[in-house]
Amino acid sequence: MSAATELIGVDWGTSNLRVMRIAQGGAVLDSRSDPRGAGGLAPNEFHGVLTEVAGDWLDDRLPVLISGMAGARGRWREMAYLPCPAGVADLARGVASPDDAPHVSIVPGVAVFEDGRLQDVIRGEETQVFGLDAPDDAVVVGPGTHSKWIRTAGGRVADFRTFMTGELFAAIRKGTILGAGMGDPGVDDDAFAAGVERSLRDPALTAALFSVRVEGLAGRLSAASSADYLSGLLIGAEVAAQADANHRPVILLGAEALSRRYAAALAQGGFQDVRIADGAAATAKGLWRIHEAAHR
Amino acid sequence: MSAATELIGVDWGTSNLRVMRIAQGGAVLDSRSDPRGAGGLAPNEFHGVLTEVAGDWLDDRLPVLISGMAGARGRWREMAYLPCPAGVADLARGVASPDDAPHVSIVPGVAVFEDGRLQDVIRGEETQVFGLDAPDDAVVVGPGTHSKWIRTAGGRVADFRTFMTGELFAAIRKGTILGAGMGDPGVDDDAFAAGVERSLRDPALTAALFSVRVEGLAGRLSAASSADYLSGLLIGAEVAAQADANHRPVILLGAEALSRRYAAALAQGGFQDVRIADGAAATAKGLWRIHEAAHR
Repeated sequence: MSAATELIGVDWGTSNLRVMRIAQGGAVLDSRSDPRGAGGLAPNEFHGVLTEVAGDWLDDRLPVLISGMAGARGRWREMAYLPCPAGVADLARGVASPDDAPHVSIVPGVAVFEDGRLQDVIRGEETQVFGLDAPDDAVVVGPGTHSKWIRTAGGRVADFRTFMTGELFAAIRKGTILGAGMGDPGVDDDAFAAGVERSLRDPALTAALFSVRVEGLAGRLSAASSADYLSGLLIGAEVAAQADANHRPVILLGAEALSRRYAAALAQGGFQDVRIADGAAATAKGLWRIHEAAHR
Repeated sequence: MSAATELIGVDWGTSNLRVMRIAQGGAVLDSRSDPRGAGGLAPNEFHGVLTEVAGDWLDDRLPVLISGMAGARGRWREMAYLPCPAGVADLARGVASPDDAPHVSIVPGVAVFEDGRLQDVIRGEETQVFGLDAPDDAVVVGPGTHSKWIRTAGGRVADFRTFMTGELFAAIRKGTILGAGMGDPGVDDDAFAAGVERSLRDPALTAALFSVRVEGLAGRLSAASSADYLSGLLIGAEVAAQADANHRPVILLGAEALSRRYAAALAQGGFQDVRIADGAAATAKGLWRIHEAAHR
């Protein structure tokens, strides 16, 4: 007999949506994706999208728990940011339902405050951290549009920092002279490593960016490899900014190719204990644990 | 009797063109601008554009001297980069004419080499430096799309560094979430100063960029002021990278409003001797001096 669905888990990102049937303990039984991310939806559209994507999975008995951007301002229901350190029990106490869907709960965000001032925010990655069994004083890195470097302590999110790496990469490629003739990254590991090395050596990123052009003028960087060099500059800038954490274990949560790139950059930056985790499995397990804690 | 035109000087930038009637000594008698910058022209189009803009000023007797991007690869005639240190006499020896216009001369670019490797390049700002009578060991800053920080020694360009400040500002505003609702900079000096302060305190620019969003979420930064804060972050990153030069005099060459902003950021970074120069006058005088040296 196959395991029963105990929870419908939803990872509602800015630009896409994943709905999962989750068994006792957090295993994913089935999942579906859809491009209707929270970034493009008005508050009254979320319920309809969820029903279209997974209406046949929903019934009155099954709880639905959502992490990510459905709780952002102007989306399904704005959820507060809980202060660090924040653990599963804190998040579980903070879940709430949108007015038009009382069987649905949304996980709050988490924020860093310094002297009472808001310094940084996450929505979604906190749930993944809770699904990881990360060791204490580890760094969980969620690469992407807005890369998150999250420090753990006692199973909680202790502190974190956001880098606009992926979004900046796209904006530079599309909107500057550096993007002329630039292809996709992932073809030249040496060019990537050279970009990382440059950022580890010198924190002046806006000067380093001009080196994409100079390396091309000098004939040392082909147009085909320039996306990898630029990616190395930007990811290297993250690693450089976190170099004082290089004695800590790192768990990477991104897609596999990107996580391998981060692992290479982290190794260049002196990080020695780096492993790659399955982000979707971590989300499901984290949602399960928040759900469990909310109903204990 | 009015002064006679001795030289037609041209500042051919990437995105626009200025033609000047220059008298003995470098004074500008008259000037005309046109939006047909070098960035959009094929080699065989330059002569026609110059004739359209200032054909009535040109005659066989008058030399034409051009600085800027007309000498870039793929433009009117590719001119080599001369190595630093480079002075007026070096530039004068390096001028050359395009095949289709023997009465026209183009000023070479200047490059920084380290251990024989090309590190950075300029085209145009070197000519302005020669027109400035800058003191030794000064820093000439040309703010803009690609900001140039040029160190002088013995009336020559000794060293320089390029920052992609203006182009990155535009790409971030147009291509990222930070640009949503963002207006033009120049309305909120306090927001600009806060951005500069943040970059002076912390070199991790891609993390600082996310603070544009966080400051907005926290209600500390309005959409109307966010362009100034972003501008402060990017200009502050330049000043932070050059902080070890803050005992040197600085001469600013940009448009007046932008130069005032740079002057404020430089003051925040501990620079004490900052003056604003007229960039167009510096170009004309620099072209005159190169012309004179070439015909001595």
